[in-house]
Amino acid sequence: MRIRVINGPNLNMLGQRESQIYGSETLGEVEEQLRAVAAELGVDVDFVQSNSEGALIDAIQACRGSHDALIINPGGYTHTSVAIHDALRAAEVPAIEVHVSNIHAREGFRSESITGAACVGIVSGLGTYGYGLALQAAAKLARSRSQG
Amino acid sequence: MRIRVINGPNLNMLGQRESQIYGSETLGEVEEQLRAVAAELGVDVDFVQSNSEGALIDAIQACRGSHDALIINPGGYTHTSVAIHDALRAAEVPAIEVHVSNIHAREGFRSESITGAACVGIVSGLGTYGYGLALQAAAKLARSRSQG
Amino acid sequence: MRIRVINGPNLNMLGQRESQIYGSETLGEVEEQLRAVAAELGVDVDFVQSNSEGALIDAIQACRGSHDALIINPGGYTHTSVAIHDALRAAEVPAIEVHVSNIHAREGFRSESITGAACVGIVSGLGTYGYGLALQAAAKLARSRSQG
Amino acid sequence: MRIRVINGPNLNMLGQRESQIYGSETLGEVEEQLRAVAAELGVDVDFVQSNSEGALIDAIQACRGSHDALIINPGGYTHTSVAIHDALRAAEVPAIEVHVSNIHAREGFRSESITGAACVGIVSGLGTYGYGLALQAAAKLARSRSQG
Amino acid sequence: MRIRVINGPNLNMLGQRESQIYGSETLGEVEEQLRAVAAELGVDVDFVQSNSEGALIDAIQACRGSHDALIINPGGYTHTSVAIHDALRAAEVPAIEVHVSNIHAREGFRSESITGAACVGIVSGLGTYGYGLALQAAAKLARSRSQG
Amino acid sequence: MRIRVINGPNLNMLGQRESQIYGSETLGEVEEQLRAVAAELGVDVDFVQSNSEGALIDAIQACRGSHDALIINPGGYTHTSVAIHDALRAAEVPAIEVHVSNIHAREGFRSESITGAACVGIVSGLGTYGYGLALQAAAKLARSRSQG
Amino acid sequence: MRIRVINGPNLNMLGQRESQIYGSETLGEVEEQLRAVAAELGVDVDFVQSNSEGALIDAIQACRGSHDALIINPGGYTHTSVAIHDALRAAEVPAIEVHVSNIHAREGFRSESITGAACVGIVSGLGTYGYGLALQAAAKLARSRSQG
Amino acid sequence: MRIRVINGPNLNMLGQRESQIYGSETLGEVEEQLRAVAAELGVDVDFVQSNSEGALIDAIQACRGSHDALIINPGGYTHTSVAIHDALRAAEVPAIEVHVSNIHAREGFRSESITGAACVGIVSGLGTYGYGLALQAAAKLARSRSQG
Amino acid sequence: MRIRVINGPNLNMLGQRESQIYGSETLGEVEEQLRAVAAELGVDVDFVQSNSEGALIDAIQACRGSHDALIINPGGYTHTSVAIHDALRAAEVPAIEVHVSNIHAREGFRSESITGAACVGIVSGLGTYGYGLALQAAAKLARSRSQG
Amino acid sequence: MRIRVINGPNLNMLGQRESQIYGSETLGEVEEQLRAVAAELGVDVDFVQSNSEGALIDAIQACRGSHDALIINPGGYTHTSVAIHDALRAAEVPAIEVHVSNIHAREGFRSESITGAACVGIVSGLGTYGYGLALQAAAKLARSRSQG
Amino acid sequence: MRIRVINGPNLNMLGQRESQIYGSETLGEVEEQLRAVAAELGVDVDFVQSNSEGALIDAIQACRGSHDALIINPGGYTHTSVAIHDALRAAEVPAIEVHVSNIHAREGFRSESITGAACVGIVSGLGTYGYGLALQAAAKLARSRSQG
Amino acid sequence: MRIRVINGPNLNMLGQRESQIYGSETLGEVEEQLRAVAAELGVDVDFVQSNSEGALIDAIQACRGSHDALIINPGGYTHTSVAIHDALRAAEVPAIEVHVSNIHAREGFRSESITGAACVGIVSGLGTYGYGLALQAAAKLARSRSQG
Repeated sequence: MRIRVINGPNLNMLGQRESQIYGSETLGEVEEQLRAVAAELGVDVDFVQSNSEGALIDAIQACRGSHDALIINPGGYTHTSVAIHDALRAAEVPAIEVHVSNIHAREGFRSESITGAACVGIVSGLGTYGYGLALQAAAKLARSRSQG
Repeated sequence: MRIRVINGPNLNMLGQRESQIYGSETLGEVEEQLRAVAAELGVDVDFVQSNSEGALIDAIQACRGSHDALIINPGGYTHTSVAIHDALRAAEVPAIEVHVSNIHAREGFRSESITGAACVGIVSGLGTYGYGLALQAAAKLARSRSQG
Repeated sequence: MRIRVINGPNLNMLGQRESQIYGSETLGEVEEQLRAVAAELGVDVDFVQSNSEGALIDAIQACRGSHDALIINPGGYTHTSVAIHDALRAAEVPAIEVHVSNIHAREGFRSESITGAACVGIVSGLGTYGYGLALQAAAKLARSRSQG
Repeated sequence: MRIRVINGPNLNMLGQRESQIYGSETLGEVEEQLRAVAAELGVDVDFVQSNSEGALIDAIQACRGSHDALIINPGGYTHTSVAIHDALRAAEVPAIEVHVSNIHAREGFRSESITGAACVGIVSGLGTYGYGLALQAAAKLARSRSQG
Repeated sequence: MRIRVINGPNLNMLGQRESQIYGSETLGEVEEQLRAVAAELGVDVDFVQSNSEGALIDAIQACRGSHDALIINPGGYTHTSVAIHDALRAAEVPAIEVHVSNIHAREGFRSESITGAACVGIVSGLGTYGYGLALQAAAKLARSRSQG
Repeated sequence: MRIRVINGPNLNMLGQRESQIYGSETLGEVEEQLRAVAAELGVDVDFVQSNSEGALIDAIQACRGSHDALIINPGGYTHTSVAIHDALRAAEVPAIEVHVSNIHAREGFRSESITGAACVGIVSGLGTYGYGLALQAAAKLARSRSQG
Repeated sequence: MRIRVINGPNLNMLGQRESQIYGSETLGEVEEQLRAVAAELGVDVDFVQSNSEGALIDAIQACRGSHDALIINPGGYTHTSVAIHDALRAAEVPAIEVHVSNIHAREGFRSESITGAACVGIVSGLGTYGYGLALQAAAKLARSRSQG
Repeated sequence: MRIRVINGPNLNMLGQRESQIYGSETLGEVEEQLRAVAAELGVDVDFVQSNSEGALIDAIQACRGSHDALIINPGGYTHTSVAIHDALRAAEVPAIEVHVSNIHAREGFRSESITGAACVGIVSGLGTYGYGLALQAAAKLARSRSQG
Repeated sequence: MRIRVINGPNLNMLGQRESQIYGSETLGEVEEQLRAVAAELGVDVDFVQSNSEGALIDAIQACRGSHDALIINPGGYTHTSVAIHDALRAAEVPAIEVHVSNIHAREGFRSESITGAACVGIVSGLGTYGYGLALQAAAKLARSRSQG
Repeated sequence: MRIRVINGPNLNMLGQRESQIYGSETLGEVEEQLRAVAAELGVDVDFVQSNSEGALIDAIQACRGSHDALIINPGGYTHTSVAIHDALRAAEVPAIEVHVSNIHAREGFRSESITGAACVGIVSGLGTYGYGLALQAAAKLARSRSQG
Repeated sequence: MRIRVINGPNLNMLGQRESQIYGSETLGEVEEQLRAVAAELGVDVDFVQSNSEGALIDAIQACRGSHDALIINPGGYTHTSVAIHDALRAAEVPAIEVHVSNIHAREGFRSESITGAACVGIVSGLGTYGYGLALQAAAKLARSRSQG
Repeated sequence: MRIRVINGPNLNMLGQRESQIYGSETLGEVEEQLRAVAAELGVDVDFVQSNSEGALIDAIQACRGSHDALIINPGGYTHTSVAIHDALRAAEVPAIEVHVSNIHAREGFRSESITGAACVGIVSGLGTYGYGLALQAAAKLARSRSQG
């Protein structure tokens, strides 16, 4: 069972930028913790981060046939990217969207999620802890699919 | 450490209505599972369900001073209730909003969350399994607050 | 064959308030006439009126399994209540929405019907006489379903 | 007492097109049934069908002075025709709008009724059976006017 | 010098319908007066009235090459007809739009003029007297063009 | 002369929640002060508070025939409740709406007042002191009506 | 019989600015021609021009009781000035709005007329010639009022 | 294999009006070329042009059962006609919409296609040459259907 | 303690215009009554009225350092004037906005208050009596500030 | 004569993803067919596909001076990319936009084409066959330019 | 070479009001610095400040023929004044708009610039230093025009 | 003191494309001039240009800790890129946005600046000369920060 965690633009600066919104853990630390959670859940996990919309689409498409689930934080592309939305549908791998901050409690232009509409579900506002929850859900989702 | 789980209108019909959207577990079964999760996490949990907006507001206000966190699925009130939004802010207890289905992947009038803007975060689309994830997050949140 | 007639907020004041818009018959008189129509049609009819959104949702849910059709005038909740919309879908009983006045010929905020989108049809603007027409249609609807 | 039933564009194809939405009765059969209902009610009824907005306006205007009520299904003109709205007001004959399907439960562009705002009331979503109900209401309306 | 006066839907009922809005003169009387004004101005005038959008377009197109100016009251088509707008541009004859009532002082859906955007100018709210003013302007316009 | 003061959702928490917005006086203290003002003005005053929209509607309707004026702070229902709007019109008792904070200086969704459109006037942003001003105005209003 | 012609901001530059839109006649020349038309019509005419919204309001108010009609070109204030709208209603003198260019054929923000909604009618797009037509209409309007 | 080509309002003036937008070929010439293309493709082709919305609907309905595909340029009706949209669906014949100019590169009100939403596809902006391409596609479409 | 009362456009016509909306008291009478109220409250009061937006801004700015509070009825500028909004913030004197009529119960364009968003609070719809209430509130506000 | 065919995000998955929408041919197969069509037309054709917006812009710019026409399917970037729009204008090479599915018959956010507004025309909804039609049109377009 | 610097409402309070937004320099100091910059650039500079929209329009019009460029900060009129927009176009003198604060980073109603659409360019958010930059640009602009 | 100048999509074609909008200088020439200005100001300057949104985000993030200010022209990404907005905030380096043309005087979709809301200020419409002004302002900004 393989799960990919994809982080979009500016998530490489986690822990450095605007820590009152995004917390103080770095992306490296978050990935470390997710490896631990994955080990407990008995799943393989790999990671991609890019600031480029095209590279994110490549990474999503590459899951097709090779991965059982996807966790994605599309960062600022969340609110406008029809192309990532299409990639998520094209990949035919169940995806869960994560946001570190609560997109419904910020500027108006952050409340809509174009990409989330192509995902199974969304975890938003629970800090970097939300990635771990999403990983649990993704593992469960992938299991029930492989059994269904 | 006490956490209240509040379910709004029509959640009493979980498992009976539109199971292709909401799954086949009843609310009783969900509460049973949450009691088990709570026991594991070492927290007390109690439950409220009502179809009445006023009763939900009463139940939220009652948490003030007595509970450490709140999990709420406001059902159809999510998209319009300024009054529940105000109650969540008045209660001054951290809250996590749960939706069984993905509110960004349904009718347009379900994509906005007025109540979620007064919560810490939102878990949406992960089925009834999302309540358990929210409970984990709520426990963590309450702990870090009581220590902070 | 059982049909429930549910009236929402301020319909208890029919015949008293703004008679140029709502006519001069009281709700009691309307219910009396509907009993007569029901007798002619050979169906049982019962009545609920409440100003509370939650009580209306309870009354709708209670029809599930026990009634064959539903007639509802959600009053002011028509235009905003996603929760009643959800209840109507959850009840899985065919419903017909009635409005005493023509919702398309009044203030702009009355022209949209959130609840009507979860009903089979709508009768609007035909005064209290519209309830009787809705009852005829509900009886026919229920009959064709039980035979279908 | 004379009542005219006017059907707009594409209603001549009733029973042939999209029967899951519009039912399987043809317009001829509907008119036959309405003649029977009219006979029972003791009113004269005549019929017009046209795909042309101008012809519909002609048919509405022609009712002035000669008919006591009007039943109209403006089809696709419902949502945009200020000209039919104006004709209904100019004719000074009470009108009831009928829609075979529920305009509040379909595409967004069908939920607004420009023409219905110039009618006494609207019957929507009750299939071709709705015409008969409208005829009852129209007869009652015309009677109370001629007596008032 | 030839000028055509085109009246759209429901203008054939001038003087009969809603006289508090549209005045008490009939279309025949208005045309009579315009013939007198035309005689004074030394121009030929002819008249078309139709409730049909297509017939109005035919009448506009027919002016091309044969008439020097056009006066048009598109009635309810004013607010929606891209087709009449296109016809006015296609005819390449200067047009003046007339409205008997003030379109900026009525329902919101009457304040926009799609057709007027393809005209030289608009006279609105001056009753049937506005046709005469438009005729003066049209004559002047046609003269300055033929000389320009 | 009798005047009812109705407070909606979350006003029972006045003085406890978000005191930088709503001030530090409790609802009990506010009611005490209003009793004193009422005594000075020579009017009877009674109080209702509820978090339930239905209970508020009941309390408004109950004023019909028994009270001379109404003061209402509909809290979060202000911005969405067509049902309270209708109740205020149905009660046929002059009403004054009060808001402790300035609804035009907060989130966008608080600037519209659906309920205030059915009131005589609105006092907003003057803290709990605004209730006393509204009481003065209500007394004056009721007096001029009983004399008019 | 006295009629005032009021010109708003930038109309003092008529004939100088953007002549392809506004023509080549100066405001002085226009006023000269209007004096001639007024003499023919047997009415007194006076003129006000100001770039200041307040001065225009003063000039409108001053007509109350002293003038029989008003012609106004509010220039750029047309599209936003509720204050001029209110002044026109307060003056209780019938007013006709004039625009040299066609407001429906320019930038979107010019198509709405806030001030025109408080006038009897509007003449737009007929160049400076439109003032003369408006004067004819104003004289007729004033006459029929003084006789009515 | 029969294909009908329907042209809406003002297309009869092709080659005469606004040639910088619509080109210099007349409708007759276009039809001539289409006959040649049809001959090459081995299909029968017939033509309808009308300025009347009703006549266009008649022509669309008439294809049902007799034609294998439809090419339509609804002209100005494209952006508003729900009735033509309904006719296209009622006819149950695959249709391709053609626009001579690029509807996405002109006034805002031309960018939406109500009628195109009921077609298989759209060819826009390729001048009169677009009809020929549409004819190729229609022939292919009809062939694959008759074989499917 | 000094308080300035500023009245904007058309308030100089109070008592003369549209008395069914604005009442029958003149501005002079209102100011007389406010002087009496001020005397009772032990505060100095002065008055400014102007139809000019610029003069109103001057009058607001002039309060800085010299006055303790401000009462303002910006009339028609309420709904559009960012400049008065800025002046109110620049003056750093607490202000209360007054409207004689209820801005939430009139035309849609009157429901938004740009200027009120820069005030402490708003009194609307209580007739000219509202000025006296605002004066009481302004005095209390100024006192608590000078003591705070 | 050289023509470039540019495919945007997710088009590399043609034939694999959502075949009920996009058909079963792969991009490789489509390109093969286009080479055949190009040979017949006597034009050179080359191909670019990328998921990256920046790479697409590079590919468009590179056509300047070297290619005679461009065919582009911008995929999900169609609806938001002002940058591709600008690139198309900057390249000064005539472009034709292709969409495999009908953008007017899908989700609302797909009906607007920002990029298409910078193209000569659009072919939409005709499946992968649409590329061939676009190639014919592009060849014709380029020829008439080189001769013009 | 003469350049006028025009400041609109509330700019006379620069340095006094909301210094965290507008900085601590007074308008007098700003003008002093601009005189120095002008001297360096070898241009004449004069200054106008007014809170009145009409006076600003007068000052803009007066530049026609006498000045070579214009720098304007229209303050709160920026967002609504069609009249200043028209004056800037009428003056036919190149203008540069300056805002001390960044209009794209404040309240929504400040992001649109009606007046800026009639200017050559805009400098926004660079504090009072922005005036000096605008002066450099204006001098360059005027020079290239006088040479062009 | 180091300042980076970042140019987004299509700016590499400066001087080549649409010179009536963007001028005739190439990006290379602009950068040459900026080096000269930088030398005068005593600051180091480096340059990045990319058509890729991801590369621009990389270039912005890389300034953190190494540069004192940033000048950015995000080209077409200005109007939609939440990701660049986030990068600008994450970098915590003061930024000034430059547009060669006036974004308030072009198509509607160019008037909003998502990226500019995360900058200190904006220079728009002053041609390539605007870069130099921005560089002056950036140097001043960086100096006052390093001293503050």
